Amino acid sequence: MDALDYMAKKAKLVDGEINKWIPPGAKPKVLAKATRHLLEAGGKKIRPALALTAAEAVGGRAGDALEAAAALELLHTFTLIHDDIMDHDEFRRNVKTVHVLWGEPVAIIAGDALFAKVFGAVAANAKRRKMDGLRTAELLEVVSQASFEICQGQAQDMLFETRWDITEEEYMEMVGGKTGALMEAATKVGAMLGGGKSKEVEALAKYGRLIGVAFQIQDDVLGIAGEEKQFGKPIGSDIREGKRTLIVIKALKTAGPKEKKLLLQTLGKPVPKKKLLAAIETLRSLGAINYASRKAESLIKEAKNQLRILPNSDAKAALLAMADFIVKRDF
Amino acid sequence: MDALDYMAKKAKLVDGEINKWIPPGAKPKVLAKATRHLLEAGGKKIRPALALTAAEAVGGRAGDALEAAAALELLHTFTLIHDDIMDHDEFRRNVKTVHVLWGEPVAIIAGDALFAKVFGAVAANAKRRKMDGLRTAELLEVVSQASFEICQGQAQDMLFETRWDITEEEYMEMVGGKTGALMEAATKVGAMLGGGKSKEVEALAKYGRLIGVAFQIQDDVLGIAGEEKQFGKPIGSDIREGKRTLIVIKALKTAGPKEKKLLLQTLGKPVPKKKLLAAIETLRSLGAINYASRKAESLIKEAKNQLRILPNSDAKAALLAMADFIVKRDF
Repeated sequence: MDALDYMAKKAKLVDGEINKWIPPGAKPKVLAKATRHLLEAGGKKIRPALALTAAEAVGGRAGDALEAAAALELLHTFTLIHDDIMDHDEFRRNVKTVHVLWGEPVAIIAGDALFAKVFGAVAANAKRRKMDGLRTAELLEVVSQASFEICQGQAQDMLFETRWDITEEEYMEMVGGKTGALMEAATKVGAMLGGGKSKEVEALAKYGRLIGVAFQIQDDVLGIAGEEKQFGKPIGSDIREGKRTLIVIKALKTAGPKEKKLLLQTLGKPVPKKKLLAAIETLRSLGAINYASRKAESLIKEAKNQLRILPNSDAKAALLAMADFIVKRDF
Repeated sequence: MDALDYMAKKAKLVDGEINKWIPPGAKPKVLAKATRHLLEAGGKKIRPALALTAAEAVGGRAGDALEAAAALELLHTFTLIHDDIMDHDEFRRNVKTVHVLWGEPVAIIAGDALFAKVFGAVAANAKRRKMDGLRTAELLEVVSQASFEICQGQAQDMLFETRWDITEEEYMEMVGGKTGALMEAATKVGAMLGGGKSKEVEALAKYGRLIGVAFQIQDDVLGIAGEEKQFGKPIGSDIREGKRTLIVIKALKTAGPKEKKLLLQTLGKPVPKKKLLAAIETLRSLGAINYASRKAESLIKEAKNQLRILPNSDAKAALLAMADFIVKRDF
């Protein structure tokens, strides 16, 4: 069972659905282009794949959650477009970002427009599945709540930029919002639309949030300890940008005065490569990289543990393998 | 029957509800402050008032549409925050705009966060009213579609800034999105939650869109022909900003070469007051201001005509008076 192949196959199912919600011929043209830009540039479509696989894992079919799966990718894409504006990022998925190509106002509107469609698509899914009023409302509430949490996480992350005394608890809360909430919504909504029992829905929701948080932590590990070529962005750019990763938070907490001084002289500064490598070495010698790695592994273990209540199936196996893949991947 | 008093009373009902969805204690603090800033600065709450009155007009109670009414104000506020960023506006409702106070990134997120809550509130309203799955999904689809149209209208308006050859049809389409769609959603959602028959819902939806468009056209008229003190912003600022109002579009179409030249030399330029007044006089002598006024009046007539299928009630009287008020107001 190759989890990636399985998930990629599921992800492919949503491409046509996404086109229905954000059609190439929408008016005005610039809005159609700007909303579709990142969607057309690719992306692994992890969230739709999770939603469809979760629907299967509770005994439904992938198609049961099709519109909602597309909606989750629209939601993810909307957050990317707005994040890129805020972070002044110029490239994503190997193409120029929306605000670089069309300016900030169009990028703001394009994100808003994608976000607007999210709820229509989820509602249409519930309608097609003939869900009752209560379940329909709950589905929408899950997506609404996740969207709000993403905003909270993004705001917290922004506030971190002015502080070095962030606690691990604060970090986990921020990442739970920024990355965990949407992964949770994906598996939860998929399980609901697949007709899962309430215990199954809750288990898959927890699984989603846990792998989401693990994904982000592992991302930070790879950003520092990974292979540049495989990871796709320069190693240490997180350090140059002064990103408050779990690694940095742990290191600053553990460090003695001398190490702390070295780290604070490097983090967020345009330092030469030599100094950068020294900082990475410090993070490593303080055990901070290892700590983050093990944290990700333990979250993955907890995530997999959630799935024990599900009957065995290809979908369940794919979700288990997906969880493992998150901490084993090298990109 | 004082329509304004009636509507203001309805509007007051939603204040508490808005607080539930965007609580003052939400985390992080900056997000709570930024999302609540414009809401606390006041605003006439026309959209919630329309929703609650529409619920009554079909035989329901105002309370039937309470959460949705709050949602519409959140939606409206979200668009204001993002519009202010795009237009570089520094003041609104006599307070500094969100991006001026907290910076653009926070303003982008604050708008997104308000938008996120919109759909949760609408879903909660449907749940409380025990609506069936189909009606619940339809409610959400109405709000999703309106939100998307607002984005389309905003994008079209932005594109107008580079052109002087906009047709009246294009203008009407833009304004339909930017202002009509949300007013339509307000009356439609209110009527749906009030238990209106499908003909009543459609009539109130049309009424909402028509008064929305009329409102915007009349706004443009007041911006040029109104009394500065009553209107609250400098007369002629639309001309200085080169705003493509129906008045300007009509004038440029009607104007001879000499008048056209004068207008194009004035529109969007930081001209002295004398030149500004000459341009206003030209708009007037070309009959463009009068044309826009009459257009607004005819839309209002059409809007009122929609309501003839409703039984007589205080709510219906208030909606009729509200329509009249839009073209008679002097602010």
